[in-house]
Amino acid sequence: MGVITITTDFGTKDWFVSVMKAVILNINPEAKVIDITHDIPLGDIKAAAFVIKEAYKYFPQDTIHLVVVDPGVGTERHPIVVKTSRYYFVGPDNGVFSYALSQEKVEEIFVIQNNLLFFSSNSISNTFHGRDIFAPVAAHLSKGLEIHKIGSKLQDYKKINFPLPCVVDNTIMGEVIYCDKFGNVITNISKKDIPSDLLHNCSAVVQIKTKKIKLHKTYQNVKIGNYLAYFGSSGYLEIARNGGSAQKCLKIYKPYKVIVKFKCK
Amino acid sequence: MGVITITTDFGTKDWFVSVMKAVILNINPEAKVIDITHDIPLGDIKAAAFVIKEAYKYFPQDTIHLVVVDPGVGTERHPIVVKTSRYYFVGPDNGVFSYALSQEKVEEIFVIQNNLLFFSSNSISNTFHGRDIFAPVAAHLSKGLEIHKIGSKLQDYKKINFPLPCVVDNTIMGEVIYCDKFGNVITNISKKDIPSDLLHNCSAVVQIKTKKIKLHKTYQNVKIGNYLAYFGSSGYLEIARNGGSAQKCLKIYKPYKVIVKFKCK
Amino acid sequence: MGVITITTDFGTKDWFVSVMKAVILNINPEAKVIDITHDIPLGDIKAAAFVIKEAYKYFPQDTIHLVVVDPGVGTERHPIVVKTSRYYFVGPDNGVFSYALSQEKVEEIFVIQNNLLFFSSNSISNTFHGRDIFAPVAAHLSKGLEIHKIGSKLQDYKKINFPLPCVVDNTIMGEVIYCDKFGNVITNISKKDIPSDLLHNCSAVVQIKTKKIKLHKTYQNVKIGNYLAYFGSSGYLEIARNGGSAQKCLKIYKPYKVIVKFKCK
Repeated sequence: MGVITITTDFGTKDWFVSVMKAVILNINPEAKVIDITHDIPLGDIKAAAFVIKEAYKYFPQDTIHLVVVDPGVGTERHPIVVKTSRYYFVGPDNGVFSYALSQEKVEEIFVIQNNLLFFSSNSISNTFHGRDIFAPVAAHLSKGLEIHKIGSKLQDYKKINFPLPCVVDNTIMGEVIYCDKFGNVITNISKKDIPSDLLHNCSAVVQIKTKKIKLHKTYQNVKIGNYLAYFGSSGYLEIARNGGSAQKCLKIYKPYKVIVKFKCK
Repeated sequence: MGVITITTDFGTKDWFVSVMKAVILNINPEAKVIDITHDIPLGDIKAAAFVIKEAYKYFPQDTIHLVVVDPGVGTERHPIVVKTSRYYFVGPDNGVFSYALSQEKVEEIFVIQNNLLFFSSNSISNTFHGRDIFAPVAAHLSKGLEIHKIGSKLQDYKKINFPLPCVVDNTIMGEVIYCDKFGNVITNISKKDIPSDLLHNCSAVVQIKTKKIKLHKTYQNVKIGNYLAYFGSSGYLEIARNGGSAQKCLKIYKPYKVIVKFKCK
Repeated sequence: MGVITITTDFGTKDWFVSVMKAVILNINPEAKVIDITHDIPLGDIKAAAFVIKEAYKYFPQDTIHLVVVDPGVGTERHPIVVKTSRYYFVGPDNGVFSYALSQEKVEEIFVIQNNLLFFSSNSISNTFHGRDIFAPVAAHLSKGLEIHKIGSKLQDYKKINFPLPCVVDNTIMGEVIYCDKFGNVITNISKKDIPSDLLHNCSAVVQIKTKKIKLHKTYQNVKIGNYLAYFGSSGYLEIARNGGSAQKCLKIYKPYKVIVKFKCK
């Protein structure tokens, strides 16, 4: 079959995404293409890296994850393919895969060089490598292309580090990493970062800006209009407002610090 | 094949919907998944109930309609499967299926209990039953799972009543039930609710708030900028503004009353 | 297989597009349906014509391009099918196909008349021909329907002319034809319109409203916050702002004139 996911910052009002799908369809009519999202904030590599990390692992083995969040298109950044033990990642070497790859066993990295694989082998646009390079390479991979035909090997891919929280006694210091459609403010503090005796035996208060918010087990524990903190479906500590957008109400537009203080009896 | 539709209030900017599709794909790679919409207003069970009622019946027999508009996720509301003579409905038992089911022959209702069907049989999130419960159950059904393996039978599903209009002589009293993307204001008054002699032999004026609007046969009967009322593609009386949004211009943000008065010669 | 693309101004918040897909699925369960976009500005035939022109040619031979941007629905405009040497186009005869068809070898044009092909042969809505006429006809075509069964032949389709730029000595006069999601302002001036000695040996300044902007080779040649002009992935001259929306910043909301002046040493 061949599953290909697509993640971009192209939006859905124009023709760009459909053209990438058309290019794929011409090469592999059997490919199954699934949109992750096309609404990554324009050129926001960190947001894209987080979205891909949250989505990629649910797909079947051998899925090809095609990502075009590429503010450096037309410059000297490499187009790459990364093969891990379970998946392929295709896109620009700008760090966009680094959160996902930190969870994977990376096997091989290739610079995309073989222009026989390109949409049009004699002319590449300076602005739409999604159509000209990444979609056709993903489609060829989904048809079983031998990976070494893509280009030459690369030693490493560009990394941006996922910010790690810091634990000191009963206090965990972290930061905001993403805000979702519901206005939930997702932090970098995961359940695994918290010593288990704190987590199970103590109550906690989360501070963001000057606001202090209690940690709850579920979303339903507070009344409409109130804030709560809880561990969301991705395993990270989230700050939400029942019946509203915590992001908007707390005006969270950058990676603010978050401090969790546990109080044990 | 197995057709699965998905309706949610998750939006399309994050990874949530793609994860549900990934979970389905792992269980049934042959499933054909069609989005109805992911832009149901957050937690708006009535809007979701109306959208599903308008869409579900166009799909082929045995289609599985998966709905995750679930403000009570994490509380004691049941996850259910409803089998009718033609379709399956999978989602929370919060009334979201009631408009559609009122048009169907309901055969069996099950509480989803069999955790072998779940995404991960040993841990269910409190916030994302779309991924953990509903998507995998829909995927198993699309592969021919025997329905009694889902859990125990339920006598009835939670109902919210579709508001019915009231006819008194030459007057029909109804209300607004939905506003679409075009700003068309859809009421609960259908052609079938109106005595046929009124409908065919008399003219009518529709009042909403303090505005009086003439009933027309088609959208084209009025000039740009003017209001009109007409029976839309769903069979319901709609109020529109040629070249604009009736909803915005009339400021319709709740289920306002609508009065239709017929005048016969 | 049968590939069908869909382009509409229906948006994605309601059920309309899903109903068209359901109608297609009932007729041809094997059809592969790809969304071009559903966010064409309401009733904007020129914007739709441009989007289709940019997208259609990337799809495999025999793809059926279904377009429902139809401000005249319910009036006497014809529903048509146009067969070219490579593709089928299905939609209203309101000019929406004319930019694409000007690049194609048109073979035959038919008025859709055979109501046996319709969604419901005895009742057609006045407002939703996408469901009632266009989707079922596209689906039948994708299954191999003989085209003459659609209705009677038409001599010509309605044309709206793509505005052509005007070259006088070292000056090219054109206009804005589309603004994309990034706020890039796309003009009707393509590389092919410019004498090649000018293009390769001279520098150029683009004037829009009172703003003068330098022509660059790639997007990366200017600093964040600055404007640039360049030839985009479609081959047209575009005006952009690095890190922002040229459309918003220059307030481009109609087809403003654009003047390119070349200066040669």
